[in-house]
Amino acid sequence: MNIDEILEEVLDDIKPTEEEQRELKEMSSKIINKINEIIKQNPKYSVIIDVVQVGSTARNTHLRNNYDIDIFLVFDKNTEREVLEEIGLEVGKKVVEELGGEYWTEYAEHPYTSAVIDKYSLDIVPCYRIDWGEKIISAVDRTPLHNEFVKRKLEKNERLCDEVRLFKKFLKSIGIYGSDLKTKGFSGYLCELLVIHYGGFIEVLKNAKDWKIGEKIILEDIYKIYNLDKNYKFRKFDAPLIVYDPVDINRNVAAALSKDNFCKFVFYASLFLKNPSKGFFYDYYKHVDQKLEDREHGALLTLKIKRDKDIVDDIIYPQMEKLQRSINKIIEENEFVILRCDVHADEEFCYLSWEFLVYELPNVRLREGPSIFKKERVERFIRKYDKYFIRDCKLYAYTTRKYKNVYELFNDIIHGKLRGKISYPKYVNPENGVICKMYVKDTIKVAE
Amino acid sequence: MNIDEILEEVLDDIKPTEEEQRELKEMSSKIINKINEIIKQNPKYSVIIDVVQVGSTARNTHLRNNYDIDIFLVFDKNTEREVLEEIGLEVGKKVVEELGGEYWTEYAEHPYTSAVIDKYSLDIVPCYRIDWGEKIISAVDRTPLHNEFVKRKLEKNERLCDEVRLFKKFLKSIGIYGSDLKTKGFSGYLCELLVIHYGGFIEVLKNAKDWKIGEKIILEDIYKIYNLDKNYKFRKFDAPLIVYDPVDINRNVAAALSKDNFCKFVFYASLFLKNPSKGFFYDYYKHVDQKLEDREHGALLTLKIKRDKDIVDDIIYPQMEKLQRSINKIIEENEFVILRCDVHADEEFCYLSWEFLVYELPNVRLREGPSIFKKERVERFIRKYDKYFIRDCKLYAYTTRKYKNVYELFNDIIHGKLRGKISYPKYVNPENGVICKMYVKDTIKVAE
Repeated sequence: MNIDEILEEVLDDIKPTEEEQRELKEMSSKIINKINEIIKQNPKYSVIIDVVQVGSTARNTHLRNNYDIDIFLVFDKNTEREVLEEIGLEVGKKVVEELGGEYWTEYAEHPYTSAVIDKYSLDIVPCYRIDWGEKIISAVDRTPLHNEFVKRKLEKNERLCDEVRLFKKFLKSIGIYGSDLKTKGFSGYLCELLVIHYGGFIEVLKNAKDWKIGEKIILEDIYKIYNLDKNYKFRKFDAPLIVYDPVDINRNVAAALSKDNFCKFVFYASLFLKNPSKGFFYDYYKHVDQKLEDREHGALLTLKIKRDKDIVDDIIYPQMEKLQRSINKIIEENEFVILRCDVHADEEFCYLSWEFLVYELPNVRLREGPSIFKKERVERFIRKYDKYFIRDCKLYAYTTRKYKNVYELFNDIIHGKLRGKISYPKYVNPENGVICKMYVKDTIKVAE
Repeated sequence: MNIDEILEEVLDDIKPTEEEQRELKEMSSKIINKINEIIKQNPKYSVIIDVVQVGSTARNTHLRNNYDIDIFLVFDKNTEREVLEEIGLEVGKKVVEELGGEYWTEYAEHPYTSAVIDKYSLDIVPCYRIDWGEKIISAVDRTPLHNEFVKRKLEKNERLCDEVRLFKKFLKSIGIYGSDLKTKGFSGYLCELLVIHYGGFIEVLKNAKDWKIGEKIILEDIYKIYNLDKNYKFRKFDAPLIVYDPVDINRNVAAALSKDNFCKFVFYASLFLKNPSKGFFYDYYKHVDQKLEDREHGALLTLKIKRDKDIVDDIIYPQMEKLQRSINKIIEENEFVILRCDVHADEEFCYLSWEFLVYELPNVRLREGPSIFKKERVERFIRKYDKYFIRDCKLYAYTTRKYKNVYELFNDIIHGKLRGKISYPKYVNPENGVICKMYVKDTIKVAE
């Protein structure tokens, strides 16, 4: 199968059916009409000057079986924040009630209404109306402009919409779709911009395979919209990929993308172009993981920490990673070699897991000291250690190891004995942890 | 005890007794007189134009109980090498026979006579007469001039001779006296030059404590002897210590000194000056070794290789070290961490020993690959390894470890299976080795 055939077949799988599309449009119209009705009924709602559907279903770049409808209530800029929040929730609540759905309040920078109506997930979010190039007032104010920009470029270009779908599916399959702090991948908007910029999915890949860390992408439209000449000095960002936002050229749309995920994309773009196959679009990363797991292991250990259910992934994941980095320093100071480490959370627990090259080390430890020519450091070293000797112009000393195995070290961690050496994040406290799933060679030692 | 008191007490121990000195002089004179007699008896011996006693006993810098007498037969420059060797051995043999000793032939660059007469060890070595600044013909031709230089500086300065003795004793005690290829330390001549240069033992230490790698020492006399101005550019040497030979300024007297021994000297010079004690002069290094050994150990392994008895230490030691370095590369390639390694030989065997941080590693091995941006290397890597992944912009792969423990690796070495990867020195062949003395943690596993 050549690339074109592959893409056609994948598209057949992922493109929403006509029926799906029709139903989605009907439902969206119904919701928007209902909102407009409600606004008209009460003069105090006149601060809402526009109602726009945003998100991929509004822009026709969504994948099959996506029933997310995002509606933004655009408020007059002079509305007070409290009024915006109050009216935003009021209107949201009313429309869901009148359409017979279930609703609840979600909290981001400001509260908004989330709902389920039949098979549809609905978000009704209030924001301020800003103009192109204007400063935002609340965090989500750019969204209607993002929507406007993408719609303008993709409307009446069904093929380009399909290219965005293929790109999203590809990224999902290799595990890097989503700009949340757990995934650290590509947002939907970023996918759309890249397809618009390069003119297609394969064109994105062909360019991406040669990207380097710090790659800069400036859409042609940006020069037109802001009337910039070609020598304009754009703001600098320290990021693996910099895609200037047409809605705000001081913002990097790819800010959430991690270095490793950037590298993954560059690598798999190249790999796919060399050996194209449908497999890249269907849970490719799961197959890779499976292949990686199908091997022998070093010593495994997992720290399982009770999770506060109110804390969302976007907060808990960075904190788990921070704690793991902090623990890794202690592990390395104690000379245990980490083969692999990972974080993961389910609803109840945080799991920080490690795989070690060795589980146990001898009682003796060799400490590297200063060069024998550094007089002061030499004095401190020989005052501290007794069994020292000279090798390669440095002092070394034999001491007794503090932690003879990994379990002893983690036991001290969960009992708070390394409190001063580990930075505890707010919501992931290692002292709430238990050591579990400990495999050492062929023996399975379940510690707790 | 202050430094002066310490030095006096040590000197009391090490200075040859008057009786010893008298007897030594008597024996030396007897030998030299006998040689001169023999030379006079046969006109063909007239190519020997001088007979000189050299070495520390000749220069009054020897330690107590040293009964080595070195006699050089100085030949006319025009003598053919064969004649020099033949007559050298003939005269040597005759004098020992006439004095009733036992003799044998030793082989260095050319053969010479070694003998025992009563408690005295005697060497009778032929050499060519060269003048100051003249090129040598055989390797030992500089010795009479070394002797002349040192005698001129030390004669009638008994105190300076004693300072040399203290210096030698100190170096012996810390294990770095001797310029042979096993010790790689300070030769007697080097000790004498340093004491001459700095004016005393303590003065040597006071300077040495601030030495840096590449330290250059040029004796005042050199400028006088060769009529050099102060800006003269001396030959450059890549060595930790460079002491220009007054007899040949293109020669480094400290060439045999290893970097580690240089560092040891700098370190112990400083340590002694800060905390002077008699202990530094009496097998100090044995006490240090004892202290170092009195600890817990990692996994120990010794490779015991049959020694060819005809091969001297000066050949066998560098070869053992070369083989160990070569094996260490393989060990490190296979991820076993060496805590300590050493070579040692007795009359029958060479012993290459190791101490490892861990004896065994898991079956899985993590291989670090190229940066994902190095296209060609990436292609080779993923062609070679299947279970690869991306971390920190690099490819890594899980593979199966070839050697799961140290014993397996050494077993392949002694069975010649790593022949292509190890450079075999001429006289130390690992395939003649057996693995022995293997201690893993508390268990002692004697392999053979």
